[in-house]
Amino acid sequence: MRNYIYCPYCANKLATDIIDNKTRQVCYQCNFIHYQNPLPTTVCIGELDDKVLLIKRGIKPRKGEWTLPSGFVELGETAEESCLRELAEETGMTGEVANLIGVYHAYSEVYGDIISTIYHIRLKSGIPIAGDDAEDVKLVPINEIGDLHFAAFNQAFDKFKKIIK
Amino acid sequence: MRNYIYCPYCANKLATDIIDNKTRQVCYQCNFIHYQNPLPTTVCIGELDDKVLLIKRGIKPRKGEWTLPSGFVELGETAEESCLRELAEETGMTGEVANLIGVYHAYSEVYGDIISTIYHIRLKSGIPIAGDDAEDVKLVPINEIGDLHFAAFNQAFDKFKKIIK
Repeated sequence: MRNYIYCPYCANKLATDIIDNKTRQVCYQCNFIHYQNPLPTTVCIGELDDKVLLIKRGIKPRKGEWTLPSGFVELGETAEESCLRELAEETGMTGEVANLIGVYHAYSEVYGDIISTIYHIRLKSGIPIAGDDAEDVKLVPINEIGDLHFAAFNQAFDKFKKIIK
Repeated sequence: MRNYIYCPYCANKLATDIIDNKTRQVCYQCNFIHYQNPLPTTVCIGELDDKVLLIKRGIKPRKGEWTLPSGFVELGETAEESCLRELAEETGMTGEVANLIGVYHAYSEVYGDIISTIYHIRLKSGIPIAGDDAEDVKLVPINEIGDLHFAAFNQAFDKFKKIIK
């Protein structure tokens, strides 16, 4: 996330100060503190008949690469709901949470710090159709899946393969 | 999180618009979109000799109540690092991640939407000392622990008790 320039509550120019041992942007007029935290995302390892659902990314970063469906958690939804929503939006598929694989930290050149909750989703039968931020979508046999183009996705996929063995 | 009034990049007054099927605040001058996401926090179930470490909260919400150490994930740290840092800051104790208990959604009257990653931490021997946002700290036998004053903490604690049985 880029640093702010103006206070979003009173439009005063922000200063920097040390708050809780961290350099943070502050407004000396209205006392706003610009706390910055990693952005929460969820990632879907969608499994059906020994295959996993991959999308061809339609947006940066890694546009054009085949990887797992993912997206930001919105206000008012749980991580599980976010994961199933992103799955539906990008692939048209539905499913049920089978396992929480892990929680991973990443740094994105587009979005800054990210915290990714990655689920193993057992898919219901159906034909995937690319939607939203996905250019294309396909079910790929698990043993044919290679680099997923994000370190956290690769780590989680290795753990997933051990869990389902 | 309260809605912003001014654009933090150009100080123009923000408008509202529908972006990705959600009402969001936007700046028609510089195209800033105020995406809002749940704030990532971590929570520590710190275990030592059949006891779990509780703190007496020194800040809102639930100030004065005994519950688990917790805090916000900072930029540049993993959820595990965040959990161990909060543990050290609030109790002076150290430990190792034993289990990822779960990822929970909550709504805080102070902070808005929160996404909490809750770990079971195996504590190293030591004497806890209250620090940072904790007024007091104590190790409590697991079977004497009742309401932890946050729904997600209670859910995670029930799961923790099943895991360690």
